[in-house]
Amino acid sequence: MLGEKRKTGPQQKMPTNRRIVLASRPQTTASTSNFRLEEAPTPVLQPGQILIRNQWLSLDPYMRGRMNDARSYVAPQALNEVMLGATAGKVVESRNRAFAAGDQVVAYTGWQEYGVSDGSGVLKIDPRGGVPLSAYLGAVGMPGVTAWYGLKRIIDPHKGQTVVVSAASGAVGGVVGQLVKTLDARAVGIAGGVEKCRYVIDELGFHACIDYKAQDTPEKFNQALKEAAPNGIDGYFENVGGVMMNAVLPRMNAFGRIALCGLIAGYEGRPIPIDNPAWFLISRLTLQGFIVSEHMDVWHEALKELGALVVAGGIKYRESVAQGLENAPQAFVGMLRGANFGKQLVKLA
Amino acid sequence: MLGEKRKTGPQQKMPTNRRIVLASRPQTTASTSNFRLEEAPTPVLQPGQILIRNQWLSLDPYMRGRMNDARSYVAPQALNEVMLGATAGKVVESRNRAFAAGDQVVAYTGWQEYGVSDGSGVLKIDPRGGVPLSAYLGAVGMPGVTAWYGLKRIIDPHKGQTVVVSAASGAVGGVVGQLVKTLDARAVGIAGGVEKCRYVIDELGFHACIDYKAQDTPEKFNQALKEAAPNGIDGYFENVGGVMMNAVLPRMNAFGRIALCGLIAGYEGRPIPIDNPAWFLISRLTLQGFIVSEHMDVWHEALKELGALVVAGGIKYRESVAQGLENAPQAFVGMLRGANFGKQLVKLA
Repeated sequence: MLGEKRKTGPQQKMPTNRRIVLASRPQTTASTSNFRLEEAPTPVLQPGQILIRNQWLSLDPYMRGRMNDARSYVAPQALNEVMLGATAGKVVESRNRAFAAGDQVVAYTGWQEYGVSDGSGVLKIDPRGGVPLSAYLGAVGMPGVTAWYGLKRIIDPHKGQTVVVSAASGAVGGVVGQLVKTLDARAVGIAGGVEKCRYVIDELGFHACIDYKAQDTPEKFNQALKEAAPNGIDGYFENVGGVMMNAVLPRMNAFGRIALCGLIAGYEGRPIPIDNPAWFLISRLTLQGFIVSEHMDVWHEALKELGALVVAGGIKYRESVAQGLENAPQAFVGMLRGANFGKQLVKLA
Repeated sequence: MLGEKRKTGPQQKMPTNRRIVLASRPQTTASTSNFRLEEAPTPVLQPGQILIRNQWLSLDPYMRGRMNDARSYVAPQALNEVMLGATAGKVVESRNRAFAAGDQVVAYTGWQEYGVSDGSGVLKIDPRGGVPLSAYLGAVGMPGVTAWYGLKRIIDPHKGQTVVVSAASGAVGGVVGQLVKTLDARAVGIAGGVEKCRYVIDELGFHACIDYKAQDTPEKFNQALKEAAPNGIDGYFENVGGVMMNAVLPRMNAFGRIALCGLIAGYEGRPIPIDNPAWFLISRLTLQGFIVSEHMDVWHEALKELGALVVAGGIKYRESVAQGLENAPQAFVGMLRGANFGKQLVKLA
């Protein structure tokens, strides 16, 4: 790995920009060898542009889909280009009147130390709001709004109904369950391992949590769901797919709603089928796939509510923080295998 | 098979009522041996009741689900009880002021020659409306409203969009496609065999029809869909499931809607999986299972529109008519295998 170098000329600061590019597309599972660390000069700003020193990178499961050269809801990540993604940092130079050096911002500049932007889509943060900068990449950012949209606009649980959430200790799932509580509904999580389940119940306050790793047969999973959701399941927030979906479907109540946010179990290798689609008919279910970036109209309302809840302690979250840009690929690959615990971030020096 | 007998006493007409009961539940595929023809006296009317001489029985795929003793959206059909189902006939005796002998009615009295009702849920038909009585069991009945609801309330196609319908020559599918045309959208059918496809295009006026029996590989099916729906698929009205669903999903456009009305391919034997649920996410699809009897609020509006279209020739339909009560089981079993062509009925002598 290369160390950090700064080259400073006499006329102009010209920091070297370290960045990670997609070197190759995975055949099945992604590995660190699909990425390459590069150095490049930081571009000189044009009028209207700002230079951001990134402090946090967001690593998100959707990025795995972009690594394939296949039709999907996002365009493929270009080879030999910097990996795209959300970032939080500080403006270090501005030729845009809407921003000043020192502003904290959330942007979409990717896996690199310095990002350049014309300001469009860049969110200026008021640090007096009490929300930590990194939270704008998690509970008060895209993952939080994803949770908010899927729960409020698709599942829309009534008081007393039961909502099940897979990947419940994750950046999205954790917020879903805590929002369920604000609606006086029952939150049941599914997570991998005793430790994650304990966190989901003790810290996040879910009513119950199922450790899927301990349910080694469909019968056991079914029984665990029966106990955790004794009145059946009215809403399911799906981040995982596969065995989760197949276990939950038979326990859904009539007119249940499924918000399909992710299918991380099937992101690598063969797709995992829905075994018995008849449940959609038998229980008159609605399943809706969604991508939160297509619902920008809700972001303002959602972020306001999420920010207030974070400040008031009504939404808690955990972060898995990798240190240094060079560790982003390893952290990303680990996240795809469930090695993270909460929102996966990379902290830049 | 027993012949028809009438026993007439001197004090009171007491016709023998022939009826078909569920004799046993199918292990996998239903057969005529699951049914039994019985004779019973027609009950003496109580105050408020009417006696209906059934002229038409409706045979519908949902009845197969009721033959199992399993959790479903309808209660199981009781053993040794008359098979339930919609019927059309004539009031022959009335002790209810809302009905008179001679009235044509649609009711839900099941597979028998005489039905008794207290009038609730019984629809009195005005024969001057120009709609044939049997159509109230098809295009202007439950199958028609099913088509109407799934298309208008779930798929809701815009002008110029493409809607694909499986079982397109059937009682529901045929109406779906003809309603699609009234919305200036493109109707693509899927049906089994050259003859059915020709009917779907030539008689019903679909823009295209795919003979699924001629598509013996997924690649062929995909290619046929590509040609029949060159702009992709915006709405899918699913009556069949299995290979149909798996072929259609990858061709769906972003924000496509799937109305799940039936899964006849999986009604007997093992469930047929949805191979790649990732399409729901990739294309942000909505899938909704529905049962039209739970949406009674639309029936009046739907029946009015469907009746007018039938009278004006905007909705055509075909009927497969079995003659005589004793042939109902054979006709029903045949329908499950696709032997019918259009709405399956039984005409009583």
